[in-house]
Amino acid sequence: MRTPAVRTDARRHHDPEARHFASDNYAGVHPELLAAIALANGGHQAAYGADEYTEHLQRVARGHFGPLAQVYPVFNGTGANVVALQALTDRWGAVIAAESAHINVDEGGAPERVGGLKLLTVPTEDGKLTPELIDRQAFGWEDEHRAMPQVVSITQSTELGTVYTPDEIRAICDHAHERDMLVHLDGARLANASAALDVPMRALTNVPGVDVVSFGGTKNGMLFGEALVVLNPDAVRRMKHVRKLSMQLPSKMRFVSVQLEALLAGDLWLRSARHANTMAARLAEGVRSVPGVEILYPVQANAVFARLPKEVSERLQKRYRFYFWDERAGDVRWMCSFDTTEEDVDGFVAAVREESGR
Amino acid sequence: MRTPAVRTDARRHHDPEARHFASDNYAGVHPELLAAIALANGGHQAAYGADEYTEHLQRVARGHFGPLAQVYPVFNGTGANVVALQALTDRWGAVIAAESAHINVDEGGAPERVGGLKLLTVPTEDGKLTPELIDRQAFGWEDEHRAMPQVVSITQSTELGTVYTPDEIRAICDHAHERDMLVHLDGARLANASAALDVPMRALTNVPGVDVVSFGGTKNGMLFGEALVVLNPDAVRRMKHVRKLSMQLPSKMRFVSVQLEALLAGDLWLRSARHANTMAARLAEGVRSVPGVEILYPVQANAVFARLPKEVSERLQKRYRFYFWDERAGDVRWMCSFDTTEEDVDGFVAAVREESGR
Amino acid sequence: MRTPAVRTDARRHHDPEARHFASDNYAGVHPELLAAIALANGGHQAAYGADEYTEHLQRVARGHFGPLAQVYPVFNGTGANVVALQALTDRWGAVIAAESAHINVDEGGAPERVGGLKLLTVPTEDGKLTPELIDRQAFGWEDEHRAMPQVVSITQSTELGTVYTPDEIRAICDHAHERDMLVHLDGARLANASAALDVPMRALTNVPGVDVVSFGGTKNGMLFGEALVVLNPDAVRRMKHVRKLSMQLPSKMRFVSVQLEALLAGDLWLRSARHANTMAARLAEGVRSVPGVEILYPVQANAVFARLPKEVSERLQKRYRFYFWDERAGDVRWMCSFDTTEEDVDGFVAAVREESGR
Amino acid sequence: MRTPAVRTDARRHHDPEARHFASDNYAGVHPELLAAIALANGGHQAAYGADEYTEHLQRVARGHFGPLAQVYPVFNGTGANVVALQALTDRWGAVIAAESAHINVDEGGAPERVGGLKLLTVPTEDGKLTPELIDRQAFGWEDEHRAMPQVVSITQSTELGTVYTPDEIRAICDHAHERDMLVHLDGARLANASAALDVPMRALTNVPGVDVVSFGGTKNGMLFGEALVVLNPDAVRRMKHVRKLSMQLPSKMRFVSVQLEALLAGDLWLRSARHANTMAARLAEGVRSVPGVEILYPVQANAVFARLPKEVSERLQKRYRFYFWDERAGDVRWMCSFDTTEEDVDGFVAAVREESGR
Repeated sequence: MRTPAVRTDARRHHDPEARHFASDNYAGVHPELLAAIALANGGHQAAYGADEYTEHLQRVARGHFGPLAQVYPVFNGTGANVVALQALTDRWGAVIAAESAHINVDEGGAPERVGGLKLLTVPTEDGKLTPELIDRQAFGWEDEHRAMPQVVSITQSTELGTVYTPDEIRAICDHAHERDMLVHLDGARLANASAALDVPMRALTNVPGVDVVSFGGTKNGMLFGEALVVLNPDAVRRMKHVRKLSMQLPSKMRFVSVQLEALLAGDLWLRSARHANTMAARLAEGVRSVPGVEILYPVQANAVFARLPKEVSERLQKRYRFYFWDERAGDVRWMCSFDTTEEDVDGFVAAVREESGR
Repeated sequence: MRTPAVRTDARRHHDPEARHFASDNYAGVHPELLAAIALANGGHQAAYGADEYTEHLQRVARGHFGPLAQVYPVFNGTGANVVALQALTDRWGAVIAAESAHINVDEGGAPERVGGLKLLTVPTEDGKLTPELIDRQAFGWEDEHRAMPQVVSITQSTELGTVYTPDEIRAICDHAHERDMLVHLDGARLANASAALDVPMRALTNVPGVDVVSFGGTKNGMLFGEALVVLNPDAVRRMKHVRKLSMQLPSKMRFVSVQLEALLAGDLWLRSARHANTMAARLAEGVRSVPGVEILYPVQANAVFARLPKEVSERLQKRYRFYFWDERAGDVRWMCSFDTTEEDVDGFVAAVREESGR
Repeated sequence: MRTPAVRTDARRHHDPEARHFASDNYAGVHPELLAAIALANGGHQAAYGADEYTEHLQRVARGHFGPLAQVYPVFNGTGANVVALQALTDRWGAVIAAESAHINVDEGGAPERVGGLKLLTVPTEDGKLTPELIDRQAFGWEDEHRAMPQVVSITQSTELGTVYTPDEIRAICDHAHERDMLVHLDGARLANASAALDVPMRALTNVPGVDVVSFGGTKNGMLFGEALVVLNPDAVRRMKHVRKLSMQLPSKMRFVSVQLEALLAGDLWLRSARHANTMAARLAEGVRSVPGVEILYPVQANAVFARLPKEVSERLQKRYRFYFWDERAGDVRWMCSFDTTEEDVDGFVAAVREESGR
Repeated sequence: MRTPAVRTDARRHHDPEARHFASDNYAGVHPELLAAIALANGGHQAAYGADEYTEHLQRVARGHFGPLAQVYPVFNGTGANVVALQALTDRWGAVIAAESAHINVDEGGAPERVGGLKLLTVPTEDGKLTPELIDRQAFGWEDEHRAMPQVVSITQSTELGTVYTPDEIRAICDHAHERDMLVHLDGARLANASAALDVPMRALTNVPGVDVVSFGGTKNGMLFGEALVVLNPDAVRRMKHVRKLSMQLPSKMRFVSVQLEALLAGDLWLRSARHANTMAARLAEGVRSVPGVEILYPVQANAVFARLPKEVSERLQKRYRFYFWDERAGDVRWMCSFDTTEEDVDGFVAAVREESGR
């Protein structure tokens, strides 16, 4: 990391070589994305999305998500999800989702508070909905006493690091559409799923019939920003108004859009995601043989869920940062990101082995 | 602007030398702030505000806003305002504000929709509230049929480019506090007011008794980000929860915090604001003698409001971007920013003169 | 008032002969409406509106409001208004209303809190909007920074006791519809306006083009209950869901519906309203000659607004209950209701004269 | 039912002798309650709760719910619950409830939409929470990413017709209070639980430590109306404001209050509830021996849940109205009310036997 040429009154307060396994948003900005920001800097550009970068981004995105795709840059993932779900529902609408979905457990109640949205949740084995699971909540459309199921929201890759196949997504979309429901895909880690399955993102979104995608940028190396991608323009109205009233309209939007362009115009999105996945696979492989460590779900994307003695995890946390997923059960989550190195993984695996062996 | 050394798949789509008078958020990122971002990059830092930069920012902010100040970085100005107002009100609370306030006319109804907030507005001459104007809405606390006035929100500098003196702010704070109301200051352009009055920011905030400030970064050269600054910790509870449920919690917060540090650790905030103000004064001075052009309000900060024949403005808009403020009356707003140059202003003044003379 | 034949553990705590001029909801239940309730009692009827009374009410209402009218009984006026406005707006919609409108000043912020609705208010002379006044807020539909004006809400008779003529309503409806806005009429006292103008209610609602009416029952003698009357079914969707989620769905709806039937099947609605209006006219006539008493607005319905010395009002309030409208100005409101008698009015006028003469 | 002496333009549209087993709100008004309404009629009483009846009701309620009890009459059960839960939570608060709770499955999403409330639900065997079940959602108070559990809401008797013992309620209250959570009791059928257990209502509410009760009136014979009863005044603030902004403030409140007085001043609440319970027990006893009919839960209050062949239920529904609870499983719900007679039950049991025997 070059010392910047321009002086600044800010100072460096951290070790730029220390990396952990806590979350892909512990990582910083990918250098190519920072370069893109610099490229878009200087001069004046119309605020709130009427800039050249946001316009150009539309073309780039259509290459990935089909000719109808419309991109609406927003600030963050919670914002992308809540804007999408508001746009897809009426005042009386509800959203069917996995109990483990980010919208249900990690957004501080924003869907309910900001959007007045009722979530109709279903427990799952591995974070993935199926038509059968959806049917546990998909009923009662004419019953005014029940919030009306209007949207199915799935997450790809899931909060548990698993991925839906294109066929699984198509089955969900068909099932939902036959019941006049729309489909939202929370793609905070869509790139990781695409890399894991070795299919283009369209095979997981517009082709099987998803209506709106929250495409993640921050967890794939962006400074900030996500893209709300409308795949079915008939499914929404006045997206710009919904985005603004949800406080998700970046004024200097060019800097979100140019990052998304830098991710999507070439293969940066894929390179970064594939790398993170590879590191997770290496990590899982490395710890699998450590006695007392159990891998909990198939490691398909960039997350490894493991169960190990709590005291081992606690000793390990003195050396590396990561989170307990279920503290009572001793379950932990280890995440890899675009900047995780093989040395990082090997060092961590060695540490797991050491602390387990005490 | 140097070409970045790292390659990126994004391309430059704009002229980095073209500048306009439309808004201070048409400008890009101040080079010192971009340098600060680069400084904070690399390695892993805890997400959601548990990073070194956000911690250090607290100390820096206390130098400006007093020893009790607590800073909560957020994404944007609407977010800062709506988080602040929610934190300062109960479910039954209402907010007294000038009819021209940003929260009333420019936030897409976010205060009402996201916060369920009723705004009790008062028409003003120049965008500024007074105790007398406040009293037109400050009554009926015991009347359950009326949304309860719990907060007075003022804007400094105002949407009309005017500024409150420290004494005016103190009078408002005293008046509000005597009636058990709290005071919010929308400081999207607080730095400009401070520069205009040549007083430190504390003289406009904690010293006269403001409870919570939305301190603007984006309009003063930041890539994105604002700081919610709590000056009176007794006035709020659970700010972090309110910020999160309002979808205003940046995951890679270090990059907001380091920009705020770069602004506030030295005098960048003041240099940039003073420069923008000086450019606005130069612009006002330049056009004042143009026949048919009338300056509408005292030019105290970085905005010039003028009335001129509509057709003149329309010809001018073919050369420079700026907004009509009141299209029927022929009122326009011209904004200067940190990167407006003397040449920009002089060129614009010449253009006004030319187009007026046709 | 007959002592009821059935014993009850409740006791009478009030004087059934004391009447005041505070509000038409200080009155009790019209005996014909209590008789209607008794008629609908006994046996089981499907709850939540699937009963015979609610079905029959549809036919009765179509006689007043045209062949497309659909009636949705609700609990109260605030509920009727907020359900109507939610049904007529999208998430991004706003409502243009007079500053004095009940929805703005008397509903505890329910439109904002329950519906997330932004009210765009306009000051008026006499509580009445006009196309010109509407235009002060009717703009900016494409501007996402502005809550989108989608509905004009008018009150008939107004909060100031004035009435719109059919032509005035038509002008407003035409003006709104030309701008793709819908029209809501808060008819808490629609019967009084109809009586005042001596025109059927249709002349004030569906004929000039109103889309949805809140038809008041409680202020015209009902025990409780209002009717949301949809005149233009294309303007709304899923009214039953909106009513339920707004907590305005009465379970034993037959008792609201039978009261509305009793009001509307014959002329009870008109008899009661005309009587209240006549009493207000008698009151205004009576006090007009009292020195120091000024009548403030045309007395067209059942409200009299007067200005008189504050100490006179305060002495008077020891004998009769009524409200100050603007305590500083000394403005008071005197309301008549279905049960106000000529003796009540004459006694009150004499009291005004006495207290003024001291 | 006497024909009313006063003429009315409404007509009777139903058979006042036909009764069903669909819901206790299919029943009409208990004659003693109608008599109470008549008693409170006539003359003027201050609106919105400043009347003699509402004042007197406070004293009556304290006899049942302890010396600190404060009663706030509202329109309906959903309203009572949502007002209570809003009053007990901050903007960031969430409510732990059984998955089967009325607030979760039968209120059209009103808690989420009107109150912005997140419900944290737990599946239960029999509709009853326990400390252990509560713990599945009671965690993460400091985690801003999670809606903060601030209230436990239980229903007595439950939606499945089961009842909590006083000890079970005390255990829940202790558990909640130790974790700084408050307890709401949805008592739409509290009287039935009290009758079932043969304990006074205080033994189920203030004595074990419940903070706020929604006390049901409509399902126990009232025309309309429920009582929000605050048992712990320190747990709430500005109840009147919360009630009003939630559109649950009846203007002619005397008629809700006098009904509550008539229920509570003597033993009408208990007589009616006990009768309904007895009828349910008779019904359960009667059908228990019918081949193919299975009783699903302990019949403790006025509901009988049964499983029987779907075609039998469908034939039965041609003769009596009642609801499927789970259509796929063939589960039905049969409710008894204050006006269910022994003959009604015996006739229904005979019909079950007949239709089962075909």
